[in-house]
Amino acid sequence: MDADESIPLLDGLATTRAIRRIAPDPIPESDLSTILWHATRAPSGTNRQPARFLVLRADERSRAAKALLARAFRDGWADKRRDASYDAGSALDPTSPKGRSRAAMEYFVEHFEQIPVVVLACLIRRRRPHPFEGASVYPAVQNLLLAARALGYGGVLTGWHGSVESELRTLLEIPDEAAIAATVPLGRPLGHHGPVRRLPLTDVVFDGGWGAHADWAVDPPGTRFAGPPPPH
Amino acid sequence: MDADESIPLLDGLATTRAIRRIAPDPIPESDLSTILWHATRAPSGTNRQPARFLVLRADERSRAAKALLARAFRDGWADKRRDASYDAGSALDPTSPKGRSRAAMEYFVEHFEQIPVVVLACLIRRRRPHPFEGASVYPAVQNLLLAARALGYGGVLTGWHGSVESELRTLLEIPDEAAIAATVPLGRPLGHHGPVRRLPLTDVVFDGGWGAHADWAVDPPGTRFAGPPPPH
Repeated sequence: MDADESIPLLDGLATTRAIRRIAPDPIPESDLSTILWHATRAPSGTNRQPARFLVLRADERSRAAKALLARAFRDGWADKRRDASYDAGSALDPTSPKGRSRAAMEYFVEHFEQIPVVVLACLIRRRRPHPFEGASVYPAVQNLLLAARALGYGGVLTGWHGSVESELRTLLEIPDEAAIAATVPLGRPLGHHGPVRRLPLTDVVFDGGWGAHADWAVDPPGTRFAGPPPPH
Repeated sequence: MDADESIPLLDGLATTRAIRRIAPDPIPESDLSTILWHATRAPSGTNRQPARFLVLRADERSRAAKALLARAFRDGWADKRRDASYDAGSALDPTSPKGRSRAAMEYFVEHFEQIPVVVLACLIRRRRPHPFEGASVYPAVQNLLLAARALGYGGVLTGWHGSVESELRTLLEIPDEAAIAATVPLGRPLGHHGPVRRLPLTDVVFDGGWGAHADWAVDPPGTRFAGPPPPH
């Protein structure tokens, strides 16, 4: 275990990245409890707390749910591999960022059933679906990923459960009023956390009006950059 | 300043709470840059990075935008005060949780124009509005609040810009494809960060199926509890 409970807050924010190569070792229940407790410290509108965390581990029903999800993730990756040109160009170079991303995705979907914990982050709806209802669940998902990182684990926020959602709901008895907002696999990273790649800060921060350059918004030395993938 | 850059990650997650009583002191640009840089380390779907951060400070246009928002927030609070019975019962006791919440809200809306920084967290839409698009902006908003806390600041994730959104868009030249996902006031807290109140963990964590009791999900000693407000 690579636990680092003493990692400072800012370092944790800067170095928590998507972990898709996950060891099969179970997460001790006390660690899982700690992770979920910190997830639930996140805010929600009017402290209404509509987020629910359905934890899939190793019992029979959870295994069946993971098998369903594995199918959905393999299908999702097959679509993405095709649509986002992961079978051509730099993706074929295993040392390129796209090649590494391809290898991590392959590992992820091939070993999905062995991931020790999958958390379905759900949202109890009190009105019709709305683009901003996520404000009461995704902050908790981010806290969950950060708390996992503090204890030496890692995971990734995904939304690839869509193609099996109906079967999953029946199997897990998820009621209609609960939306599945994210599927979050968690476990011990086979790789490492570390710096992420993002757009330069001045591309995404505006000062006093849309598009207005914020000359004070400065990426610290060593920042690694990446733009979004090309649209497809 | 009450900066605590060495606060451990888990402690930061556990003690970052909504701050609505904010001092008028400006936030130095270097701190603001640090806060926004950490916000942008959060994940987004396919690293597409659709979040944009429009920062309102003290220039003329920002002041006009803050004045518009102040109107919206005062209206929002007036509605909530009436609908959620903030003018009766325990809310009239300034030492009760609801009474303290009422006082903080009063201070917040009365002093809105003096809040040094208001960040509009926006989301560039690439398809029609969708309930799960928030997965690519609210993790960054949570990181923003956590990074602010690490540097001794505080703020709150709000969505009360709605009633002035049209005027705000015109004033700030926000394009149609950008949704305003959250309005986040930021500054030095007049109160303190600290533990938040939430539902007991076993009310929101399920093990292997919806509603299935997770006996290992245990709130640590000293956890403070609060359910959601009654519906109205």
